[in-house]
Amino acid sequence: MTAEPGLFEIMYSLRSMRRLKPDPVPDELVWKLLDAAIRAPSGGNTQPWRFLVIRDADTKRFIQERYRRGWDRYVQANLKAAAEAAVPMTEAESAARAKMIGAATHLADHLHEAPVLLLVCMQPRKMDLPPDPESQPPSPAALYASIFPAVQNILLACRAHGLGATLTTLHLLYERTIKTKLGIPDEIDTVALIPIGWPAGKFGPTTRAPVETLTYWDRWGAIRRR
Amino acid sequence: MTAEPGLFEIMYSLRSMRRLKPDPVPDELVWKLLDAAIRAPSGGNTQPWRFLVIRDADTKRFIQERYRRGWDRYVQANLKAAAEAAVPMTEAESAARAKMIGAATHLADHLHEAPVLLLVCMQPRKMDLPPDPESQPPSPAALYASIFPAVQNILLACRAHGLGATLTTLHLLYERTIKTKLGIPDEIDTVALIPIGWPAGKFGPTTRAPVETLTYWDRWGAIRRR
Repeated sequence: MTAEPGLFEIMYSLRSMRRLKPDPVPDELVWKLLDAAIRAPSGGNTQPWRFLVIRDADTKRFIQERYRRGWDRYVQANLKAAAEAAVPMTEAESAARAKMIGAATHLADHLHEAPVLLLVCMQPRKMDLPPDPESQPPSPAALYASIFPAVQNILLACRAHGLGATLTTLHLLYERTIKTKLGIPDEIDTVALIPIGWPAGKFGPTTRAPVETLTYWDRWGAIRRR
Repeated sequence: MTAEPGLFEIMYSLRSMRRLKPDPVPDELVWKLLDAAIRAPSGGNTQPWRFLVIRDADTKRFIQERYRRGWDRYVQANLKAAAEAAVPMTEAESAARAKMIGAATHLADHLHEAPVLLLVCMQPRKMDLPPDPESQPPSPAALYASIFPAVQNILLACRAHGLGATLTTLHLLYERTIKTKLGIPDEIDTVALIPIGWPAGKFGPTTRAPVETLTYWDRWGAIRRR
C-alpha cells in the first residue's frame, strides 16, 4: 500500500468486510480512523460526534448477544419478505445476495470477536426556530446529516489502512440497554456500530444498480440519457 | 490535478465551499459524482438513494427563497444563542466562526446561482420486526445510515474533481412545499440539498476539536492518552 492511496480506488473497492481476523488493531490506527472521521462536515461546524472504542471482552459479548437477536428478527421480517416481493433477480444478483446474508449471519455470530467495536455517538443539537406558517418541524435527517458523513470517512480510512469494517445499526433495537451497560448519558445517541479488524476476505468491486435509473433532472420522473 | 488524487489529501482539505462561480458544470461530471455516491454502503444493499439534479432557473429560485427564510430563522434562533452560551472562543476560533456565518449568508442569498442544486432523496425501507420485550422501536438513525455515507462520497468526489459543494439541510423546513413543486411522491424523503459549482475560494484545512477530547475507551467517560 502506498502512503497516499487514491480516493476513487478506495471508494470503488470499499466492501463491507463482515469476516475479520482476531489480530489486534493498534491504538495508533484507531486514532487515525477518528482523525479522518472529524474532517467530515457538520451543521454549523458543531462537530456532534463522540466515539466509544470497545475492546473489553465482556462488553463486546453483551453487545453481540443483542445484535444477534436483532439480526434474527431482521432476517425473519425483512429479507424473506424482500426476496418474495422483489422483482426477479439474475443468477448473479441472487448469488451475491445469498453471499451477503451468509456473511452477515457470520458477523452476527462473531461480532464480539472483532478486535474493535467502534460505537459512533452523537450529541444532538436542539433546534428551536421562530415560527413560519409555510414551514414544518425539522426532519431528523437534519441531525443525522452531521454524523453519517463522519462514519463514511471512518469506513474509507479503514479501507485505506487495510482494515475491514461494516456499518451496522442493529444495536439500535437495544440502544437503551446498551447505553445503560456502557454508562452513556441519556442525551447522547448511539448511531452506528462498526466492527473493525483485519479482513479475512478481499476488497473489490460492489454490486450496485446503475445511477442512470435513479436520477431525475429538474423534475421528479424526468430521466436523461447518459 | 492528477488522475487519482489521494484519499487523505482530499478528506483533509474538504471545506464547505459556499461561494461558487456561475460557470456551468457538465453533465458528465454530475454523472461521475453520482457514480461515486452509489459506492457507499446501505442497509441490506437496498440502495435507497434517488437523485434530482436541478438546473432550471425558476426551480432554483423557488428553493432559494425558502432556503433563505430557513437560514434567517436559523441565525435568529441558534447562532446567537450558541455564541452567548458557548465556552469562550479563541480569537482564531471566533474569526473562523464569523467567516463561516458570512459565507453561509452569501450562500443563502445566492443559492439559485449555483450551476447545480443536487437534491439527494431516499426511498425509505419499511421495517416490521417481530417483537422482543427488551427491544425498542427502530431509531431513525438506521434509515439515515443508508443515505448520508453516499452524500459524503459526493462531497469527496466534488473535491477530487475540483468542484465546490456544501452539505445543507435547511430546505427540510419547507420540504412539503418543495416536494410538491418538484413532483416528488409522498413516500420519497428529501434528505440533503447540495449546491455544486466551481469554487471561488480555495480548498484547505478545516477547524476541528482534537479527537482525543471526544473519544472514550470501553466505557463512557474513560479517556486514554494518545
